[in-house]
Amino acid sequence: MNYKDDGLALHTDFYELNMMYTYWKQGIAERNAIFEVYFRDLPFGSGFAVFAGLEHIVNYLKDLHFSDSDIDYLKEVTEYPQAFLDYLHDLKFTGTIRSAVEGDLVFNNEPIVQFEGPLAQGQLIETAVLNMVNYQTLVATKAARIRAVVGNDPLMEFGTRRAQETSAAMWGTRAAFIGGFNATSNVRAGKVFGIPISGTHAHALVQAYRDDYNAFKAYAEVNHDVTFLVDTYDTLRSGVPAAIRVAKEMGDKIDFQGVRIDSGDMAYISKRVRQQLDAAGFTDTKIVASNDLDENTIQNLKMQGAKIDTWGVGTKVITAYDHPALGAVYKLVSIEDEHGEMTDTIKLSSNAEKVSTPGKKQVWRITRHGNGKSEGDYVALAYEDIANQESLYMFHPNFTYINKTVRDFDARPLLRTIFDQGKLVYELPALVDIREYAMQCVDSLWDEYTRVLNPQEYPVDLSQAAWDNKMSIIKRIKEKVNWHQA
Amino acid sequence: MNYKDDGLALHTDFYELNMMYTYWKQGIAERNAIFEVYFRDLPFGSGFAVFAGLEHIVNYLKDLHFSDSDIDYLKEVTEYPQAFLDYLHDLKFTGTIRSAVEGDLVFNNEPIVQFEGPLAQGQLIETAVLNMVNYQTLVATKAARIRAVVGNDPLMEFGTRRAQETSAAMWGTRAAFIGGFNATSNVRAGKVFGIPISGTHAHALVQAYRDDYNAFKAYAEVNHDVTFLVDTYDTLRSGVPAAIRVAKEMGDKIDFQGVRIDSGDMAYISKRVRQQLDAAGFTDTKIVASNDLDENTIQNLKMQGAKIDTWGVGTKVITAYDHPALGAVYKLVSIEDEHGEMTDTIKLSSNAEKVSTPGKKQVWRITRHGNGKSEGDYVALAYEDIANQESLYMFHPNFTYINKTVRDFDARPLLRTIFDQGKLVYELPALVDIREYAMQCVDSLWDEYTRVLNPQEYPVDLSQAAWDNKMSIIKRIKEKVNWHQA
Repeated sequence: MNYKDDGLALHTDFYELNMMYTYWKQGIAERNAIFEVYFRDLPFGSGFAVFAGLEHIVNYLKDLHFSDSDIDYLKEVTEYPQAFLDYLHDLKFTGTIRSAVEGDLVFNNEPIVQFEGPLAQGQLIETAVLNMVNYQTLVATKAARIRAVVGNDPLMEFGTRRAQETSAAMWGTRAAFIGGFNATSNVRAGKVFGIPISGTHAHALVQAYRDDYNAFKAYAEVNHDVTFLVDTYDTLRSGVPAAIRVAKEMGDKIDFQGVRIDSGDMAYISKRVRQQLDAAGFTDTKIVASNDLDENTIQNLKMQGAKIDTWGVGTKVITAYDHPALGAVYKLVSIEDEHGEMTDTIKLSSNAEKVSTPGKKQVWRITRHGNGKSEGDYVALAYEDIANQESLYMFHPNFTYINKTVRDFDARPLLRTIFDQGKLVYELPALVDIREYAMQCVDSLWDEYTRVLNPQEYPVDLSQAAWDNKMSIIKRIKEKVNWHQA
Repeated sequence: MNYKDDGLALHTDFYELNMMYTYWKQGIAERNAIFEVYFRDLPFGSGFAVFAGLEHIVNYLKDLHFSDSDIDYLKEVTEYPQAFLDYLHDLKFTGTIRSAVEGDLVFNNEPIVQFEGPLAQGQLIETAVLNMVNYQTLVATKAARIRAVVGNDPLMEFGTRRAQETSAAMWGTRAAFIGGFNATSNVRAGKVFGIPISGTHAHALVQAYRDDYNAFKAYAEVNHDVTFLVDTYDTLRSGVPAAIRVAKEMGDKIDFQGVRIDSGDMAYISKRVRQQLDAAGFTDTKIVASNDLDENTIQNLKMQGAKIDTWGVGTKVITAYDHPALGAVYKLVSIEDEHGEMTDTIKLSSNAEKVSTPGKKQVWRITRHGNGKSEGDYVALAYEDIANQESLYMFHPNFTYINKTVRDFDARPLLRTIFDQGKLVYELPALVDIREYAMQCVDSLWDEYTRVLNPQEYPVDLSQAAWDNKMSIIKRIKEKVNWHQA
């Protein structure tokens, strides 16, 4: 039997429901639990990441409920008793969410989203939260890297046709805008998110009119602002000459804004096209390039002196092509025990970097007082008052002999309260403000952290208390495991 | 102002609308046009691809219409005149779609979807059609490669948290199922598509109970069929011994189906776990592995004799990690001229492989009569009757000295009619039947084409008529371009 797709409550892994059922049946579903989202490695060899995904998470949690058809489906395919299905049917989100906000810089091995509330609910939302944060943060980060190399040039997102299905095209182009793009080709994203839309014509127009001149002429008769795609047959011998001819014929009736090149050796061709346009007097007409571009190809084109004014980027940003998954995880860091006390928890691994950091935490972004430039992030237990300390001893959480003492600093907490026991207390900012905020955040980093290739590692340090807590829990569990074995 | 997200008509690139407007204004919007979808390179170094995406395309085209809010938005952000907006508002899909069906094998440089109908409509749907076909075909292909190396082992899709947003998680896991996976962790995909769902518990359950034994015990008291995740603290010293202890205590009350390992050296650990389970008498208990697996890691694990029975694959299949975009394009191949005649069109490029093949085409899958094994694909102009020819001269479209003559063959057309002038004439098959069909299609290939590493290149040849047509059009355009220059 087929069911209606009428909500995201079941947009979760089956094991989450099986754990919920176990917790419910064992009477611990309502125990207070703290889960934290973090990723272990920055993508693309980047020195930073740009956080995105919160707006979709807020939409998801606001609307979180099991529909009638969800319950019907579970009744068909699982052995869950009716009482548990009733519990699901009645479930409303009552948790607290603390999170970085969209546009914030985030780094590896620090909590970027935190859930606090009933254990069963924390389990339910894991999958969807990661699905949204992982992808959108990835794309915002890729976009910020591309922005870093184009300077102030206009940057367009053209990737819908290569996006991984429809919601990636939508949320991906929004994330690219947050990361510094100026516009999108996706009209639906323009409509729903208010992103400026951009686009002129494709090769098909030229083919439909069977040559460049007739196509450009038809287009120019109908549209005032024109950018002609000049590489359908031969850029230098047919496309650009036809564009110039039409522009001269039409005179003031059009604004000949640009020509677009979508293939060939961009460095060479763009210089020749620039010469042709300049020689014809169209010195203000821009050259738009689009052809599997990303921060690496763009940086190379700039170094070769390519005469490109505007960049169209598709596949490489919308799929985060060179690192298509962020890999953020969602770990239980603390849980209420049978006596009502919170107990911190850990996930061990033989790989040091994969051991989770127990306890409810806050991330403090430490900046130098005066210039506002970043000193690093300081991950402390939630109860620690970092902002009012005189000096801060910061050390690397794995290589503890790398350390420094910081004075005269400002500390601001990264995680802000978004939902307070189920109530949305955060007002979602306008998208243009998120984008502006992201740009400011990137500016607050030293250039050593923002460079595209081999950036300096940004310090993400643990407080002494968080470190001591982690070590004592590791010790306790190791003793227990060895004792088991004996 | 914010608009409702109430349809996919605007899920298109802005240039498509600008071209539609130009065609409409110039009076050629209703001219008959033929567009074809094809990709130039097989992904992952694969010898074949598995076609998927058609069901989403059918849903999209059946419902294609511009909503009131779509029109309001366009009125706000464009200069389109009211008469054009009215035209859009009244637009219904009246085109013909011929396509490979889901589960079909498809290859590079052959049409896999074909639109025939009004030029403006063909333009509108380009972006969404590519968005759906590109991603789903990619994932179905990746999945088939993984299926090829696991043999008959159960194969689970666990990737929702790493998927590129929500619709990728849904359509991606459906594509993985088509390509040969047995089940998904995504409950919503189970509900909507009828895919079997799979999943037991995560590390969080073990952390919530603070040790393996108590967690497994709690889980086993509530669930009959159990697979324990054994690597939260220490697989061999804590996880597996605790699982065995619980299984022995619970006896017949549970079915101890498996243990899952999610980290560490899978080859070594799985062998040790197998020994522990066998020594305790649980010789039927399966070992499930999941940890960034794909066809390459699985093949290596099998070669090393890893004792793994069931495979959970996430990130690598749902993002098509090593080749995250297929790169299919959508090209105008023929257009009605001012006299009502169809004229074939081309897109040129200095790169031979990037030159499109003009004309309305059909793909014939040539198999040897008797054993049904593939001889290659024969791309012919639509009017050619291939099935009734006595012999077929097949030659490589770029290296024409690679050729053969085939006799005693069967030829079946790949492109089937899905929509006939706007009317859906194809009944979408049940998903299990699509999957079964895909498995049969893969079996019809020689092993040389299906092997994962360095497969033989499957022949995709042009008919003499298609080749001659292409060459004469190239010649005509080159003459025209040179004449322009002179």
